[in-house]
Amino acid sequence: MDKLSHLDENGSVRMVDIGDKPVSRRVAVAEAVLVVGQEIMSAIEEGRTPKGNVYETARLAGIMAAKRTSELIPLTHQVPLDHVGIELESGADRIRIIATASTRAATGVEMEALAAASVAGLTLYDMLKALSKTMTLTGLRLLAKSGGRSGDYQSGALSQ
Amino acid sequence: MDKLSHLDENGSVRMVDIGDKPVSRRVAVAEAVLVVGQEIMSAIEEGRTPKGNVYETARLAGIMAAKRTSELIPLTHQVPLDHVGIELESGADRIRIIATASTRAATGVEMEALAAASVAGLTLYDMLKALSKTMTLTGLRLLAKSGGRSGDYQSGALSQ
Amino acid sequence: MDKLSHLDENGSVRMVDIGDKPVSRRVAVAEAVLVVGQEIMSAIEEGRTPKGNVYETARLAGIMAAKRTSELIPLTHQVPLDHVGIELESGADRIRIIATASTRAATGVEMEALAAASVAGLTLYDMLKALSKTMTLTGLRLLAKSGGRSGDYQSGALSQ
Amino acid sequence: MDKLSHLDENGSVRMVDIGDKPVSRRVAVAEAVLVVGQEIMSAIEEGRTPKGNVYETARLAGIMAAKRTSELIPLTHQVPLDHVGIELESGADRIRIIATASTRAATGVEMEALAAASVAGLTLYDMLKALSKTMTLTGLRLLAKSGGRSGDYQSGALSQ
Amino acid sequence: MDKLSHLDENGSVRMVDIGDKPVSRRVAVAEAVLVVGQEIMSAIEEGRTPKGNVYETARLAGIMAAKRTSELIPLTHQVPLDHVGIELESGADRIRIIATASTRAATGVEMEALAAASVAGLTLYDMLKALSKTMTLTGLRLLAKSGGRSGDYQSGALSQ
Amino acid sequence: MDKLSHLDENGSVRMVDIGDKPVSRRVAVAEAVLVVGQEIMSAIEEGRTPKGNVYETARLAGIMAAKRTSELIPLTHQVPLDHVGIELESGADRIRIIATASTRAATGVEMEALAAASVAGLTLYDMLKALSKTMTLTGLRLLAKSGGRSGDYQSGALSQ
Repeated sequence: MDKLSHLDENGSVRMVDIGDKPVSRRVAVAEAVLVVGQEIMSAIEEGRTPKGNVYETARLAGIMAAKRTSELIPLTHQVPLDHVGIELESGADRIRIIATASTRAATGVEMEALAAASVAGLTLYDMLKALSKTMTLTGLRLLAKSGGRSGDYQSGALSQ
Repeated sequence: MDKLSHLDENGSVRMVDIGDKPVSRRVAVAEAVLVVGQEIMSAIEEGRTPKGNVYETARLAGIMAAKRTSELIPLTHQVPLDHVGIELESGADRIRIIATASTRAATGVEMEALAAASVAGLTLYDMLKALSKTMTLTGLRLLAKSGGRSGDYQSGALSQ
Repeated sequence: MDKLSHLDENGSVRMVDIGDKPVSRRVAVAEAVLVVGQEIMSAIEEGRTPKGNVYETARLAGIMAAKRTSELIPLTHQVPLDHVGIELESGADRIRIIATASTRAATGVEMEALAAASVAGLTLYDMLKALSKTMTLTGLRLLAKSGGRSGDYQSGALSQ
Repeated sequence: MDKLSHLDENGSVRMVDIGDKPVSRRVAVAEAVLVVGQEIMSAIEEGRTPKGNVYETARLAGIMAAKRTSELIPLTHQVPLDHVGIELESGADRIRIIATASTRAATGVEMEALAAASVAGLTLYDMLKALSKTMTLTGLRLLAKSGGRSGDYQSGALSQ
Repeated sequence: MDKLSHLDENGSVRMVDIGDKPVSRRVAVAEAVLVVGQEIMSAIEEGRTPKGNVYETARLAGIMAAKRTSELIPLTHQVPLDHVGIELESGADRIRIIATASTRAATGVEMEALAAASVAGLTLYDMLKALSKTMTLTGLRLLAKSGGRSGDYQSGALSQ
Repeated sequence: MDKLSHLDENGSVRMVDIGDKPVSRRVAVAEAVLVVGQEIMSAIEEGRTPKGNVYETARLAGIMAAKRTSELIPLTHQVPLDHVGIELESGADRIRIIATASTRAATGVEMEALAAASVAGLTLYDMLKALSKTMTLTGLRLLAKSGGRSGDYQSGALSQ
């Protein structure tokens, strides 16, 4: 039987006990991409659609969501974040969201980075949805993590 | 200049005033897909990896997140939901998440359905992440909505 | 198979769809009893232990918890409460907590009343725990409810 | 004895029962002023200190706080807001914050407007505090309210 | 005058200052019992009423509530939990809930364990309430605690 | 260009990275004044208007708000507070609120102290608003801070 850390020997849900894990510096980077279409991106980049406050609202929403990850994802621990950063890159038909979370704690912050990227993406969607109903948030995944017992990880995409 | 409902004439963020909109029944359906890989899906479907509690935890997390959408997405309204439903379908290498939200309110519940699908997907990720770090949540989008001034909407995917 | 409203035909958790239920006035009354022991109750009643602010803190905590029931109990609906009342009655060795919740909504407020009584009781416990570690919160139950399709209910205890 | 609506006949705290009050349109407007000093305001207005994102962050924080007023002010009711608006006006040495909240509900939204103005002001303070530790948030008060049994109200300041 | 740690010399509520207390490992165990009746318990144990998802939902709700104890019980501190565990034991007419909370912090986690047991019990109640309105949550109390200045504690019940 | 710690080199909002800052003891003291008028203050001081529970409710609200500052002020860090204290002083026509927050953390608690004073003041306003609509919360500011890289600070008002 494969072992899932969030299920105990009876298959019941559980919170992993991190009481024996030392506090260490941990960083996680996650990515998501909101595909909005070329027309909207042109409008944004040419200034016909305002960009600044759309992007800033998404950034703030992502940062605020990261701080509340333990309320959203049931079996995560409460982690005091040292930093949350949200970068937004405009592409031809898409906006790339890169979220970084870091802490000094006894558990990692992958879910915090993923939650930040996800909520930043949803907020971009909300801000732009008057223009299109066919936007899609795609490619939400972990790009890299460092610190902790399980060692460092880097996705192929990032290491290229 | 294209008009974004969440920005005012000066480009400042604003919450849309729904004071003149009547209360009506509104439904939204959103979808997301967690690509987990064939090996993990085989293990889940053959019972080597427990399925029930992983899926139920995701369902509960999605339902609970939908109720708190107005705390996550800055410019959304507080909407009392009549129902949130989360369906999970196992595919060959992926889990499809379909979230439905409904209300009787003066504004739509697209963001509630999207938030539910997104947090259900993130929770699946959290539950399964001991098995893989390369999972990706993809295709988070609106499938359909009904009710409200802007009329009904159905994505091509759903209407097929 | 007995039917649980919070499980669907496959046994998966679900939020009950209240979209077809009319809005009506609903009230629920719940009770809990904190057994603190005769000595502490004598001290409280004779004024050797301050009573006012202990009781008021419990009252406020119960009222505030009732408003957030939908965040605590996973499958409950968000219900805007018209009123929450917390009565505290001193007995020989115990404090009786009676919580009333009322709303105009499409679903009942039993869980709101129970959550209010429970958190008021836990707060009394927290306020008094410097005096005793053997307090017990007991008898948390529904005393009465009115409104809604399932009709009125009154526990034997209340109707006596 | 003067009557405070939030205390019962025994002087205990209580939530006002609004079960008999009809739902009606209600609006409240509140104001606060952050005194930041002439130097900082000159820097902001001349563009030496960035203005846009400081102001937008405050606006978003005020809007989000208004939606959560019932979690902050213990005896307030949960009120679904139709609209929250935050205007920011630059003065010679100060930033004026005007917050408007509106609803269709059985109780007023004064506290929502005041909470929005207050948190928007605190957020401006947080954004600018690297420049000065002597800023003061002042003049937080109700400018006007309409709707509800107690009739309309307009402060002298507004009616001038 | 007996001293309550949550009241100051004037009898006003206060948060205990833990600034001088060292961080140490602390564990607390709390118990509650939901009396549901023999009929319902037979149905659950014989599989006529589904058990798994009812119990898992309660477990998740208890874990999530423990993480938010400082929002529910007014004078508690924010404590980052290393672990929350919820065990559920089926009896002839009742379900026993045992909640364990642990941390490395400057204050104990009794209230976290009690909140977890209480909310897990309320969630069981909510899941089963279609079957019975006469269930009672009883015997919510501290079973044991260890760590911290006040030393270890074990209730008679546990030490037997 | 003046540097705001909450904006990056592009002027986008950011959370300050405190990952390199050591954990140290930090204290902040903030003040606010609710001007309520001589008549109301006389009524309060002469006991015609109840004082105890009005003040205690404000105290509790301030303490609870301090613990949730990171949810209210977007770019603040989550800080586990060792202590929050709220003092209330009755003046001839006003109530002075002094809020103290302390922690052992890598960042300061000015915003926590300010949020506590602000929400305590708003709660006083809410409790007393049946008596007057012209109350004003004024003079919300930092009185003192100690600990951290930027050194101690004391406002003129406090040092007098």
